[in-house]
Amino acid sequence: MIPQEKIAKMLAAYDKKKLKLATLCSHTALQIFYGARAEGIKTIGLCTRERKKFYDSFPLAKPDEYMIIDGFNSLPCEELAAQNAVLVPHGSLVEYAGSSINDLPVPIFGNRNSLLWEKSREKMSHWLNNAGLRTPKTINPQKIDRPCIVKFPGAKGGRGYIIVKSTDEFNIRVPNPPTGTLVQEYLIGVRAYPHYFYSPISKAGYAADSGSIELMSIDKRLESNVDECYREVAVGVEVKPSFTIIGNTPIVMRESLLPEVMEMGKRAVESAHALFGGIPGPFCIESIIDENLNFYAFEISARIVAGTNIFPNGSPYSLYSYGEPMSTGRRIARELKLAAKSSQLQKIIY
Amino acid sequence: MIPQEKIAKMLAAYDKKKLKLATLCSHTALQIFYGARAEGIKTIGLCTRERKKFYDSFPLAKPDEYMIIDGFNSLPCEELAAQNAVLVPHGSLVEYAGSSINDLPVPIFGNRNSLLWEKSREKMSHWLNNAGLRTPKTINPQKIDRPCIVKFPGAKGGRGYIIVKSTDEFNIRVPNPPTGTLVQEYLIGVRAYPHYFYSPISKAGYAADSGSIELMSIDKRLESNVDECYREVAVGVEVKPSFTIIGNTPIVMRESLLPEVMEMGKRAVESAHALFGGIPGPFCIESIIDENLNFYAFEISARIVAGTNIFPNGSPYSLYSYGEPMSTGRRIARELKLAAKSSQLQKIIY
Amino acid sequence: MIPQEKIAKMLAAYDKKKLKLATLCSHTALQIFYGARAEGIKTIGLCTRERKKFYDSFPLAKPDEYMIIDGFNSLPCEELAAQNAVLVPHGSLVEYAGSSINDLPVPIFGNRNSLLWEKSREKMSHWLNNAGLRTPKTINPQKIDRPCIVKFPGAKGGRGYIIVKSTDEFNIRVPNPPTGTLVQEYLIGVRAYPHYFYSPISKAGYAADSGSIELMSIDKRLESNVDECYREVAVGVEVKPSFTIIGNTPIVMRESLLPEVMEMGKRAVESAHALFGGIPGPFCIESIIDENLNFYAFEISARIVAGTNIFPNGSPYSLYSYGEPMSTGRRIARELKLAAKSSQLQKIIY
Repeated sequence: MIPQEKIAKMLAAYDKKKLKLATLCSHTALQIFYGARAEGIKTIGLCTRERKKFYDSFPLAKPDEYMIIDGFNSLPCEELAAQNAVLVPHGSLVEYAGSSINDLPVPIFGNRNSLLWEKSREKMSHWLNNAGLRTPKTINPQKIDRPCIVKFPGAKGGRGYIIVKSTDEFNIRVPNPPTGTLVQEYLIGVRAYPHYFYSPISKAGYAADSGSIELMSIDKRLESNVDECYREVAVGVEVKPSFTIIGNTPIVMRESLLPEVMEMGKRAVESAHALFGGIPGPFCIESIIDENLNFYAFEISARIVAGTNIFPNGSPYSLYSYGEPMSTGRRIARELKLAAKSSQLQKIIY
Repeated sequence: MIPQEKIAKMLAAYDKKKLKLATLCSHTALQIFYGARAEGIKTIGLCTRERKKFYDSFPLAKPDEYMIIDGFNSLPCEELAAQNAVLVPHGSLVEYAGSSINDLPVPIFGNRNSLLWEKSREKMSHWLNNAGLRTPKTINPQKIDRPCIVKFPGAKGGRGYIIVKSTDEFNIRVPNPPTGTLVQEYLIGVRAYPHYFYSPISKAGYAADSGSIELMSIDKRLESNVDECYREVAVGVEVKPSFTIIGNTPIVMRESLLPEVMEMGKRAVESAHALFGGIPGPFCIESIIDENLNFYAFEISARIVAGTNIFPNGSPYSLYSYGEPMSTGRRIARELKLAAKSSQLQKIIY
Repeated sequence: MIPQEKIAKMLAAYDKKKLKLATLCSHTALQIFYGARAEGIKTIGLCTRERKKFYDSFPLAKPDEYMIIDGFNSLPCEELAAQNAVLVPHGSLVEYAGSSINDLPVPIFGNRNSLLWEKSREKMSHWLNNAGLRTPKTINPQKIDRPCIVKFPGAKGGRGYIIVKSTDEFNIRVPNPPTGTLVQEYLIGVRAYPHYFYSPISKAGYAADSGSIELMSIDKRLESNVDECYREVAVGVEVKPSFTIIGNTPIVMRESLLPEVMEMGKRAVESAHALFGGIPGPFCIESIIDENLNFYAFEISARIVAGTNIFPNGSPYSLYSYGEPMSTGRRIARELKLAAKSSQLQKIIY
């Protein structure tokens, strides 16, 4: 793990008037570039050669500049630092960079510790419990007494998750469970994914810790094939549910549930502060709401999530905080500007 | 029931240049406050102490002023009247105030009679039939010959509804049916909830009665757990469907269906006029559309519905009527202004 | 088929400064009229007498002028031509005009050949294959070995499609299959409908052929009753799935899938060019995405689709191309203006 002091030093050497935002061309990159442009921040797209044509086809959302990379494994950190760039982590970066993300010698937007806590199922479990969030039960694979979802380590966007209903079925379908395999009770309810932004330097949102939390938007994920398997069931086709995320659809939540949503966010932020130094920037608490309006948090994403892509022009919630179109991507650029202006960059970057 | 003349008298004493809108901090309050602000109307939030922090976290959607209430049962009507406030009824107000809403000594936006017709299943049935709307059949609990949905009186946001398939099952699961229990055939189709606004003073929309109807937006409700029970079915878990509303998702309808949607709204408005003096303001006809494109109206909400929360910045339909972002919440404030300006407040307030 | 030269001649006689857009009052007409107004193009609504009231109720989306028609079968082509009108084809026009569309003596936006290739299942199959798109398998009705969807010729908005699981079932349910009946394997996955716009005169989008492709938006269709039959299954009601489209809901797709979406569009455009002279204007590739993120294209719509009605004010994708609200309807009007200005109308009209 690269020490915080080292990043702080790099940051100190940055030209604060020429800060740039960089990210991998994937996941939420269009939104991040578009949002940064609205805030007058220059952007760098870390892009494979074959994807450049795609990003180029969006005149207002392509990066100001590309750095062509051979794959997602090697990032030109030195070059980024030379350009005063702050790297924005998103799902694809976390997935592809893996734990090497700890050592990237370039300032990262947010607290890079949080990405480790997202990546490890055990750490995340500890975090959720420490925050006092209601979670689905973790089940011992040799004592499965109800339908469970089996989540493998490093599963990519839900791919490969399976359902088992007994220990026998588990043993047959997963003869050699890799270390880090998680067996969770299968919850019944409706999923909702609130997108938060925690700012340690603003006081405009929902008061938490020394800063405040904003509700940016809410989505529901579309997973293939489970989200259309009702059709197969009706048709009479046997279907093995799979959970590969293919997109997102917008939702709003019953207003009377939102105060609890904000409290959940607050507890996640304060627990993050206690456990690993905080979680400045965007995050998401993946939730299921049951018929009695109880929330269950089954995951936390400690960075921008793809569901925010629905709202590059603002959401029904960000509208209530901003007199202009405010996406999570733009909010990141705004935070960078605010922090630079008030000399608080070290609070939001590691 | 407080007499209309009494409210008219109170209203006559109001300072028409200082009219305010008040509502309970719940349901659609953010949208109402945000919309009123866009129209330059001051707002009062009737808020429990613990929810104030939540509303405060939305700088542009919090009320201009709070009146802290101990619960939802006692409303400071005198104080509201002293402030020239018109109370906007929404789902939570109807639910919490119950039938005491009839007697609230404060002007209410719309016709308070309509809230009684919404509240009583018998009255609503009468209204739907009088309007000539196709409805699901009401079934005698002792003659259940098909899958039915059992709706209990005062069910809150769908909570507690159950499905039964026979009289035997009904008798076992509902040994002592409370007065007002409704057994309805279970319809097969896709739900859609068009949001209307009826203005007795504008002629810009779809002509009805002496005024006109505007199509504000359309949503589909998300209900827990029924809206994800397809997952359980696919997974092989037995599930008891429940119908607790947890949120809403936006839809548009086939354009060739919309003329009928408007006719349905027109008939509901004209029937309301004949039955109980009219329904100025927002309303919603909860519908199911079957495979032959037949509409079935299974409920009417005689006030703003939560599905409008998706569209605080306008919808794909309100855009076609207004050159600016027009939500149902804002439309309420606009109507108040228009009526005040043309001395027609008594047409939209009781 | 009316020869292209004849249309070109008519177009040559048009007053290029007074071009109008005309369409049937149905399907996507509100969006098209609203979009044309934003571009300063006058519109003509071909409208039945009984629908006029509905269109009149949207002050900003009604046509500038109506031509009242008795039904959808007879179009006043001469009158349209006298008014310098270009006819915009949409789903209802294709459905109601049938193959007589070939002979309409009035300029049509896009290439009218493409509508024939959409209409004939055999031609469409050839197109999809020629474009190298992965498609569901076509099954010989006498060799049905898996669940299949049976699509009848001229099925209107999905109405009448059925599911069969064997040849026996097919023979019983479809004793006399009409010519053009298509039996397709029933695919398992999640549907997504990307909306494209191909311009032969712009270079701003994704490079294809001599022009470029823009990603306008993405939707998912709502079909009655199949899209809520999960409720019946959970409730224990037997349900025969039907596929009548009743509306649309917005989605965004995983960003890493979008480069493939654009490539699919590019291949469809280039194949169209080779097979029948090209497909200028809007189109849609109806897709299913399976759990391994494979796309299957099961249809192409060679004109504006109803899913674009969600986005009259622009979408999360069109925002990235335009600094203003850009719907597909408005994009059509924009293209007409651009082509007229640069004397390239013949490239986008036949």
